[in-house]
Amino acid sequence: SEVKKIAVIAGDGIGPEVVGEALKVMKKTEELFGYQFEFEHGLFGGIAIDEKGTPLPQETLEICKNADAVLLGAVGGPKWDNNSKELRPETGLLGIRKALGLFSNIRPANVFDCLKEASTLKPEVLEGTDLIVVRELTGGIYFGEKFRREGANGEEAVDTCVYNVQEVERIVRQAFEIAMTRSKRLASVDKANVLETSRLWREVVNRIAPEYPEVELEHVLVDNCAMQLLRRPSSFDVIVTENMFGDILSDEAAMLTGSIGMLSSASLGEGSFGLYEPVHGSAPDIAGQGISNPIATILSVALMFRLTFGYHEAAQVIEDAVKNVLDAGHRTGDIAVDKSTAIGTTAMGDLIVAAM
Amino acid sequence: SEVKKIAVIAGDGIGPEVVGEALKVMKKTEELFGYQFEFEHGLFGGIAIDEKGTPLPQETLEICKNADAVLLGAVGGPKWDNNSKELRPETGLLGIRKALGLFSNIRPANVFDCLKEASTLKPEVLEGTDLIVVRELTGGIYFGEKFRREGANGEEAVDTCVYNVQEVERIVRQAFEIAMTRSKRLASVDKANVLETSRLWREVVNRIAPEYPEVELEHVLVDNCAMQLLRRPSSFDVIVTENMFGDILSDEAAMLTGSIGMLSSASLGEGSFGLYEPVHGSAPDIAGQGISNPIATILSVALMFRLTFGYHEAAQVIEDAVKNVLDAGHRTGDIAVDKSTAIGTTAMGDLIVAAM
Ligand SMILES: CC(C)[C@H](C(=O)O)[C@@H](O)C(=O)O
Ligand SMILES: CC(C)[C@H](C(=O)O)[C@@H](O)C(=O)O
Repeated sequence: SEVKKIAVIAGDGIGPEVVGEALKVMKKTEELFGYQFEFEHGLFGGIAIDEKGTPLPQETLEICKNADAVLLGAVGGPKWDNNSKELRPETGLLGIRKALGLFSNIRPANVFDCLKEASTLKPEVLEGTDLIVVRELTGGIYFGEKFRREGANGEEAVDTCVYNVQEVERIVRQAFEIAMTRSKRLASVDKANVLETSRLWREVVNRIAPEYPEVELEHVLVDNCAMQLLRRPSSFDVIVTENMFGDILSDEAAMLTGSIGMLSSASLGEGSFGLYEPVHGSAPDIAGQGISNPIATILSVALMFRLTFGYHEAAQVIEDAVKNVLDAGHRTGDIAVDKSTAIGTTAMGDLIVAAM
Repeated sequence: SEVKKIAVIAGDGIGPEVVGEALKVMKKTEELFGYQFEFEHGLFGGIAIDEKGTPLPQETLEICKNADAVLLGAVGGPKWDNNSKELRPETGLLGIRKALGLFSNIRPANVFDCLKEASTLKPEVLEGTDLIVVRELTGGIYFGEKFRREGANGEEAVDTCVYNVQEVERIVRQAFEIAMTRSKRLASVDKANVLETSRLWREVVNRIAPEYPEVELEHVLVDNCAMQLLRRPSSFDVIVTENMFGDILSDEAAMLTGSIGMLSSASLGEGSFGLYEPVHGSAPDIAGQGISNPIATILSVALMFRLTFGYHEAAQVIEDAVKNVLDAGHRTGDIAVDKSTAIGTTAMGDLIVAAM
């Protein structure tokens, strides 16, 4: 089969460790399915600041642009937290999203049976929770004009939230498409009783909805959604929302599953190109100890296989291997009930590869 | 004692019913403590749209301005949901906040022992949860310029989020003051890694913090806060944040307590003036049936007594009466485990008055 180019951006903290295990899994699929991957590594985030003086070096961006997909570990850490804006890892993250046109962030939040108890929600409330947050990723208040100015009452700061019809259309259409492949329920989240951008958002959703008559659509105000996620998580299927609301709600949704160390995400643009990364962060407190959980990153590979390459069979093999290893009782420290029996990052990766 | 003027704005849905019970409680305190209240009723919200053609009639605003405090029921309902902006109840709500200078919204989220089971969170996680969200209420993206325009890619909508130093200072200072009366822990929530208004916010918080050396301060990013509220709710004491984030997080916090039908809120300006209202909405589905729970509104009176009038003893009497009635097993339908034993709005109000 065709050679697929993968840009590998390990990043900071536990990023390199978890990405290392994900690469082992990809290589195993070369063996099992005859795929061919060409990996190109790029510096990104804090390590790029240290070595290149910028969180997103031009070479890294080129590597990504030349690739079919990007695998990202995690970025950031206290070392860079007090840097000026241009020298912060997050600035690289926002930059890469914009530069690669990754307008859609897909975050599945589902419950792993073996982790049900890890949630702070009651198991009966969580039962059956399996939702996806589709977050707009290159617009809104994240990318609008920002500045300081002198106002009548002293210095003031301004952020601008902008959405145009086309930006809303493409993400909403994608959410409807995803809903069609699932339980066909879509919750569009906005604050249409206050924001003009939300009113535009809702107009576009209502205009597109008739194209998907099978999808049951509800409009939910963002404050209400923050509540309903807690009250009836299993009633949601696909949630689509703008950038800032999506940032908040996708984290809330991830946390309520109790499975945050296991959740993967995809950031997609036009066509099949995508950037894949675990939902968890760089966990600088445990970096370098070889105890981090590589499963979210490994599952991000499965997501890449499904969404970018259409390698559904291999994706299934990876997901099943993860499930089997967990069912056999193997746990990294973050998900182990009895910490003394926890295994390390490499051991977990090896077990998953062996189970494939 | 001095006559206190109370503006009473019953509003829509269950508003009039629950406010009716709260007024009985206030009258009882006249008897018990020799207070004198003068009640002036005003139309507001949907009913004002119907009767006066505007959600916030000038007379109502005058009544509020001439009062020492405002007691608000609830506003809104499906009847007005599709109205144009100027004819929607929410527009009245935003208008009254701005017109009365109510820059601070105080939302206690605590767990009522008898309702522990009502939460979707595990009881052991919820244990000891008792926090207050202090939300900035007259600034930010709610009140910045909003408009449509033609952009390069078709029509676009714009919202502007603006904060000046003085607006941040006054709310942050108030949050520190509140923290000083409690466990002296303050979480300031922002999105300083993305927003300019958040960077200003954080600068102001850090500048004021040394004035309160006893208060343990943490900065929490809004997405992380949405997670931490779920993971460790009892670790929060006072949370202070800007308008939009506060809207979302205060609802999340309220819902996780499981006590949303019991929670009161205060919106404060300069001086002792305040507007008090239950956190719950107008519940049009059960309006007029006499089955709504008046406790949140009654507890809003207690909050008014504490924050506007300094009537701490009477506030305590009200809070104790509520507790005793609940401990004796009386429940309205919304909080009854066995719905067949539920009592109505008036009966609950009478029992609380009798217990005072
Ligand atoms: C680091 C930060 C800029 C980023 C965001 O807000 O988008 C992160 O929270 C995320 O969700 O990927
Ligand atoms: C009705 C709406 C405008 C309002 C808000 O967003 O402030 C409400 O959600 C609230 O929290 O009081």
